[in-house]
Amino acid sequence: MSSQPEHPTLLIPGPIEFDDAVLQSMSHYSESHVGPGFVSTFGETLSMLRKLFQTTDPASQPFVISGSGTLGWDIVASNLVEPGEDVLVLTTGYFSDGFADCLKVYGANVTQVKAPVGSRPQLPEIEKALSEKKYKMITVTHVDTSTGVLSELKKLSELVQRVSPETLIIVDGVCSVACEEIAFDEWKLDGVVTASQKAIGVPAGLSISMFSGKAMQTLQKRKSPPASYFASMKNWAPIMQNYEAKKPSYFATPSPQLVHALHTALTQILSKPLSERFAKHREASDRIKQTVASLGLKQVAANPDDQAHGMTAIYLPEGVKAAELLPSLAKKGIVWAGGIHKEIAPKYVRFGHMGVSVLNPERGDIEKALKALEDGLFECGYQKA
Amino acid sequence: MSSQPEHPTLLIPGPIEFDDAVLQSMSHYSESHVGPGFVSTFGETLSMLRKLFQTTDPASQPFVISGSGTLGWDIVASNLVEPGEDVLVLTTGYFSDGFADCLKVYGANVTQVKAPVGSRPQLPEIEKALSEKKYKMITVTHVDTSTGVLSELKKLSELVQRVSPETLIIVDGVCSVACEEIAFDEWKLDGVVTASQKAIGVPAGLSISMFSGKAMQTLQKRKSPPASYFASMKNWAPIMQNYEAKKPSYFATPSPQLVHALHTALTQILSKPLSERFAKHREASDRIKQTVASLGLKQVAANPDDQAHGMTAIYLPEGVKAAELLPSLAKKGIVWAGGIHKEIAPKYVRFGHMGVSVLNPERGDIEKALKALEDGLFECGYQKA
Repeated sequence: MSSQPEHPTLLIPGPIEFDDAVLQSMSHYSESHVGPGFVSTFGETLSMLRKLFQTTDPASQPFVISGSGTLGWDIVASNLVEPGEDVLVLTTGYFSDGFADCLKVYGANVTQVKAPVGSRPQLPEIEKALSEKKYKMITVTHVDTSTGVLSELKKLSELVQRVSPETLIIVDGVCSVACEEIAFDEWKLDGVVTASQKAIGVPAGLSISMFSGKAMQTLQKRKSPPASYFASMKNWAPIMQNYEAKKPSYFATPSPQLVHALHTALTQILSKPLSERFAKHREASDRIKQTVASLGLKQVAANPDDQAHGMTAIYLPEGVKAAELLPSLAKKGIVWAGGIHKEIAPKYVRFGHMGVSVLNPERGDIEKALKALEDGLFECGYQKA
Repeated sequence: MSSQPEHPTLLIPGPIEFDDAVLQSMSHYSESHVGPGFVSTFGETLSMLRKLFQTTDPASQPFVISGSGTLGWDIVASNLVEPGEDVLVLTTGYFSDGFADCLKVYGANVTQVKAPVGSRPQLPEIEKALSEKKYKMITVTHVDTSTGVLSELKKLSELVQRVSPETLIIVDGVCSVACEEIAFDEWKLDGVVTASQKAIGVPAGLSISMFSGKAMQTLQKRKSPPASYFASMKNWAPIMQNYEAKKPSYFATPSPQLVHALHTALTQILSKPLSERFAKHREASDRIKQTVASLGLKQVAANPDDQAHGMTAIYLPEGVKAAELLPSLAKKGIVWAGGIHKEIAPKYVRFGHMGVSVLNPERGDIEKALKALEDGLFECGYQKA
């Protein structure tokens, strides 16, 4: 029995439904941000993040900072690039465009490799781009929440190591960390930025990131100071190192309640093998995508290899409007999201399937959503051709 | 009866002890950040902030953004000043220095009027500084959490209106909003930045601010784009305006749980006249400062007119170390903070008295703390001369 009151089941691509114990941690009594109790909680949280990202390299540096996931872009753009430096942005939708905009604010010279809506840039075009110019950094949106397109990090990294090994590989993992495999060390990633409210399963309000030793050296070797104050990795790195060493430290006040909730969520996540967690997300995703196909619907991410496992972006069939289908789902207790990719926004809807909704099948969230979709389409006058 | 487990009473200058209902709002079940329920909650929260800041001018613009209080400095520095413009920073301690550092990161040309430790810049010196150069902005730390020094905003504003009326008046209200009077319109303030975890009484994680129509015009008239992405007021202003008009809108995901807690806290705050709230903080502060004096102790803020009403920074008597006194208080269930002003850090301690600890006298927090201080000093070998 859940301790939460009855409420519509939230199945958007973040925030997701939260576990009871995680929500209860949000109400933790007030503690000093530099007192021994909280310092220990925060330190353990940072150490657990290393396991979630599968990094054992002591040079890797985790950061947990109050903010939205978007703050992660500012952290990357204001610390790891200097004005006028070249960045290659692989574009798979709304969120890759946002990352590009953020990089430009801090003076980066951005080149985008754009893929048609619903697909991702292909390795040969990326190789061509990397060969034409020396890039300080390449960024990739692991799962673009606007399209459900999944990028392939391992092969991308192998390509970068071969063609342009100095280039930093930065991953926007907002909609992928904790539901898609990320082997930080093995794949030689230099940075992954994410947020609390998606597959990690903690209420929104934390920017969570991991940077490699190479990224930290890039920070140290800057010719100009970081171009942000609150998002300055130079201001935060010693604080994170002190907390992890269980020493009190202060730059700006962290949120003890959100960090407690993250501690609870990471303890749950790491209590089982990560491979099992990823497999369960993959199985649920496969089942959802099969049902979507069996209903005669198409996904925004056309190619099965490019499809995310924590969300599905679904094209509406001819004659069915999101403004009809979403309220119909809501009446059945299911909350989905509308489209946000500007080229196709009214034509599709988004179904998030991450965290407890997938891992605790006794909740019945996924089955309830698929049934609601079928019934909702019928009510909207749709019949499979 | 509190629903919180027994725990040490947190009496540092933020985070503070939280009300039960506020903490329970932190565990609110998950909601879409663009769903009608949360949009309404967020919209009401923004409207309530207008009342807390005592502004009825429709041109005033509230902002609530995930982040620490420090993010408020970035919001000001990256939006309201352009590189090379002059800013006059009134310095009363650690936090004024921090604001100056942040302004410099974004290219401001900073002049500081520094006061000796424990006092504030005087009006004649400020007038002299304002007469020597045309400043785009003057910043003042309403209560410097490092010293407990209170600045006088009304007279300062009158001076600025008389000598340099174009200059924007920006207040760091992190340790003053909701415990010290702030009449935003009447005092012609252009910006007040604060955080959730002090007198407002909500767990850390929200940057809360109010800007005047003049500040918003300054933003619109920038020659260069805002120098930050996540802290860009241009990115956030339409979002805040939409939420307040109860329309869903998206730039970066807000934290529904923290916003619910803020909604609960503001509803409580505004259920009684603000003047009563400020008077109660003043009364408790007077009682505390009398007891401190009767124990033969001196405050860091020497002049009674310069003393904050939500905290007291107390010099340790000869022979008593913070490393002895603070653990002695902790054993008695009271958590105070050490010093952080670099010139005097080991020589003083800080006692925060804001929110429920002051407003709900049946808790007995203040009396317990004063008794613990007296007993703790005795245990540390101190006897009043």
